[in-house]
Amino acid sequence: MTASATLQASKKKRDERERAVKEMEDKLGVLADHPEDADYTHTRPLDIVANLKSRKAGWTVERIMIAFIRTACDAHRKTNCLTEVMFHEALEAAKLKDKELDVSPDNIQGDFWGLPSSFKDTYNIIGVDTSLGLSQFCDQPTAETNDEAGLVKVFRKAGGIPFCKTNVPQTLFATECSNPIFGTSTNPHDSLRTPGGSSGGEAALVALHGTPIGWGSDVGGSLRVPSHNVGICALKPVRGRWPHSGGRPTVPGSDGVKVVEGPMARTVDDLIFASRTVLSLIPKMEGSFKGESLIPLPWRETEQPKRLKIGYFTGFPGLKTSPACSRAVRDTVEKLQAAGHEAVSFEPPRLLDAFKSFASMTSSDGYGTLLGNLGPDPMEPSLRLVTLGSKMPWLVHQLAVQILRWVVRDTLFADIFAVSRPKSVKELWAATALRDECNAEFCRAAWDHEAFDAVICPVLSVPAMEHGRTTLLSPVAIGTIVFNIIDSTVGVLPVARVDRELDSTPPDFLKGSVGSWILERRMYEGTNPAYNADKMHGLPIGVQVVAKPWQEEKVLKIMKVVEEAVKFK
Amino acid sequence: MTASATLQASKKKRDERERAVKEMEDKLGVLADHPEDADYTHTRPLDIVANLKSRKAGWTVERIMIAFIRTACDAHRKTNCLTEVMFHEALEAAKLKDKELDVSPDNIQGDFWGLPSSFKDTYNIIGVDTSLGLSQFCDQPTAETNDEAGLVKVFRKAGGIPFCKTNVPQTLFATECSNPIFGTSTNPHDSLRTPGGSSGGEAALVALHGTPIGWGSDVGGSLRVPSHNVGICALKPVRGRWPHSGGRPTVPGSDGVKVVEGPMARTVDDLIFASRTVLSLIPKMEGSFKGESLIPLPWRETEQPKRLKIGYFTGFPGLKTSPACSRAVRDTVEKLQAAGHEAVSFEPPRLLDAFKSFASMTSSDGYGTLLGNLGPDPMEPSLRLVTLGSKMPWLVHQLAVQILRWVVRDTLFADIFAVSRPKSVKELWAATALRDECNAEFCRAAWDHEAFDAVICPVLSVPAMEHGRTTLLSPVAIGTIVFNIIDSTVGVLPVARVDRELDSTPPDFLKGSVGSWILERRMYEGTNPAYNADKMHGLPIGVQVVAKPWQEEKVLKIMKVVEEAVKFK
Repeated sequence: MTASATLQASKKKRDERERAVKEMEDKLGVLADHPEDADYTHTRPLDIVANLKSRKAGWTVERIMIAFIRTACDAHRKTNCLTEVMFHEALEAAKLKDKELDVSPDNIQGDFWGLPSSFKDTYNIIGVDTSLGLSQFCDQPTAETNDEAGLVKVFRKAGGIPFCKTNVPQTLFATECSNPIFGTSTNPHDSLRTPGGSSGGEAALVALHGTPIGWGSDVGGSLRVPSHNVGICALKPVRGRWPHSGGRPTVPGSDGVKVVEGPMARTVDDLIFASRTVLSLIPKMEGSFKGESLIPLPWRETEQPKRLKIGYFTGFPGLKTSPACSRAVRDTVEKLQAAGHEAVSFEPPRLLDAFKSFASMTSSDGYGTLLGNLGPDPMEPSLRLVTLGSKMPWLVHQLAVQILRWVVRDTLFADIFAVSRPKSVKELWAATALRDECNAEFCRAAWDHEAFDAVICPVLSVPAMEHGRTTLLSPVAIGTIVFNIIDSTVGVLPVARVDRELDSTPPDFLKGSVGSWILERRMYEGTNPAYNADKMHGLPIGVQVVAKPWQEEKVLKIMKVVEEAVKFK
Repeated sequence: MTASATLQASKKKRDERERAVKEMEDKLGVLADHPEDADYTHTRPLDIVANLKSRKAGWTVERIMIAFIRTACDAHRKTNCLTEVMFHEALEAAKLKDKELDVSPDNIQGDFWGLPSSFKDTYNIIGVDTSLGLSQFCDQPTAETNDEAGLVKVFRKAGGIPFCKTNVPQTLFATECSNPIFGTSTNPHDSLRTPGGSSGGEAALVALHGTPIGWGSDVGGSLRVPSHNVGICALKPVRGRWPHSGGRPTVPGSDGVKVVEGPMARTVDDLIFASRTVLSLIPKMEGSFKGESLIPLPWRETEQPKRLKIGYFTGFPGLKTSPACSRAVRDTVEKLQAAGHEAVSFEPPRLLDAFKSFASMTSSDGYGTLLGNLGPDPMEPSLRLVTLGSKMPWLVHQLAVQILRWVVRDTLFADIFAVSRPKSVKELWAATALRDECNAEFCRAAWDHEAFDAVICPVLSVPAMEHGRTTLLSPVAIGTIVFNIIDSTVGVLPVARVDRELDSTPPDFLKGSVGSWILERRMYEGTNPAYNADKMHGLPIGVQVVAKPWQEEKVLKIMKVVEEAVKFK
């Protein structure tokens, strides 16, 4: 009965999706037969709109849409990245736009005019589900325009055309990208690897040029992990400036850590284009966000100091950062120094406490609300370790913690396992107070004391892992999680690629490590470690560019400086 | 043992305070002998600073300070409003400022230059306690300048001199103003009545011209209730623009409803002066707030529409609003209409649910954290009803709820009593989700749909009550509490006085009321009702001016329009 409900929902959703993709492939042909599509899909979004508006020869909204539909279909065949497919409707909308331009060329407005875009499945879009790959939310399409996600409204207002939605992990609480309804999305660089999560489908599609700009969300790394894994850029704002309304939360009312929405793109310029457009438009859309009040802080063109003061660190506590990801930061810093900027090694305070506070808060209802989303669906393996502790009877859990601490002798793993438990409200508040302490302490050190313009550090401990690895390595995301606790505007951009020579694990790599040896051995040792520079050769590596809240303009400008310094290919 | 610890702490603190006050009375004389002090204390803060800077004859910082010290001593004798007394140090600081002006008149800077000010006891100030009237926090003076409250830092930066702190209710979670350490503060208009809480001492001092400007805080009405009770103005911001760091929270980590700091003053112009000064200065003080990131949104001079669209309502659900407080809104609205503004009767959605969500969230640890502050101190009666439900064993509580519902037949009281219980984290999150729903629904109705510039409504259900009345009438604050749930910038200003003829309770006043009859009878019926227009004759009545978050400039301008229309004396 249970399995059958999931299977039934899954079959229906996959069939619908397949029909919609197939219809386009039949009608428009496939990308392999249209290499000229790259002329459109490899053009910067800003220029696409400019070309459309100026009626450049060969450039119509329909033509653009066809190119992106063919590319998105191809990306989907490669990575299983799509969930909802609105190609048919989008093509009609594109034709209408072309007519508009013919009829009243002077009335054409909007910085996204004629631009297609995909959205992460979490965004409500009229006419389609926001199922998040959960069978109980299938067949509940958004019925009212006003119920669309705030960013979808802004995107439309700017003249854009949403044309598909993309895949997420079950419950969104994972750094892989798989669910029983839509299946597993894969990494464009290696189908055996995950694009990461939760904005994993979106990242895959952006990386493959299947959409000009992508739109994701982040509560523990969901914009940043996939961007790092596939080699694209993303901006994680802090809640306040960007609309959040109009999605499906998986843990309503849990606001110890707030979900934030943000853009994903292939270049920093594209992120700037997306961010400037959105933040400039919001003040003109007052009253459009279902009662949501946004900080009245429109996009500002800011001046940067010529010589930036950048703090940096190359690893996170708890789970040692891989040679590749540490090197990526070091190389970046050297290039910034070469470009005349100041880079200061920085020891960030209390990151492990910040991680514990996250684990503590999110587990405090025993993941009851989160797992309540599953309905009849089987739980994905990526949720296993995360939710394990909260499912054990109290005594068993206590025993397990003591065994981890005293027999297995992994104090750190024991600590994290110990806090990942259902708790009383009083304990939750203590964990929340810990969040505030960690946040304040980091900010005092980095912003008040050092007065860094930004801090640069790794994203994950490792580049994109093989599917299923996070089942036992979910703490890999500590590096992104801490910057949801330390309320920060964070950009991610690719800066390097794994090099099998430079980045191999030295034999004594873990010697003297104070991290969790259970996790670190699994990651770096044994016959089949998760991190393997040889197998990972060529995979992209990102860095985080971290700054204070509501510093989108500044972070993007610094990302641009980094992009120009590292010249990533 | 227990009582003795409290008595001991209390005696020590009261003796210290008395010594400090007495020292000044002996040295400077008392206000009664110095009627000329009114020339200084009745001058607008803006003009005080201007007079000082222009070295107007008879105006020195020392002279100002003496006038306010004498007036504050007098106010304290009348209302027991002070906690920490720094008069001696402030007088020395004043003399130093005068010297500064003599020596380098061109270097004198800051909009608060030379201005004394009191602060609510919650603000850390170097050298004195932040005890909040809790014995366990006595004798722990703030030792580091950097640990001072953010707003104290801003005030000093602008040239001001903090000169005393003011009284609060035990745990801050009450709308009276009493604690075992400092005793009970009284209302300047009638010593048998409360100035309200929690910024009650501050309100009393401001009302009596004992400080040019006051600084309070608010989590359920703590800036607004006292301002209403004593007839002054206050601005309750939304967390984000104003510094919050540097105080003693009574429930750390509980952030379902956030404490916010804000100014109190005798006129709207003074509030504008205070707010403009603070918000203009903050961007220049980056890095000064102990890691706290403030919204980078400096004070803006905004334009208002000539014809405002004001929504209004005259009563809150649950506990019927008194004739006086309803009339105050009606009169205000009529005067606004006469001045050419549009006023639309507005039915606010789900206020009772908003109140329930507040009661539900704040009670969710059984008030364990809150009451943990008491240490050895006896609990004040004002906390009795609030915390009653959470102390009952589950079965007794269930029974009490059923009796209230089916025997006593007060469904509403039963509902509120039912949610005021210790809960699981899952239940807390549900209450938090309810907060978000109520917030969004009100904002959709008032701001998106009606596009009001502001909503005007009563503050409390009644004017200032006698001491001890809130013991059984704590829900009287529903009208302020809802606007901590509905995240709003709210101003309060006095608009009318109770009139024994106009505002008496008609015999059928409660007929057809759908509120809690337990509360309403106690408030309006029997031989000694809490509301009595005859006894209350002449007491001030405030209104709330409610707008979206981060709309300080707009709210203040609209308050000014209201102030000019009502001409309150």
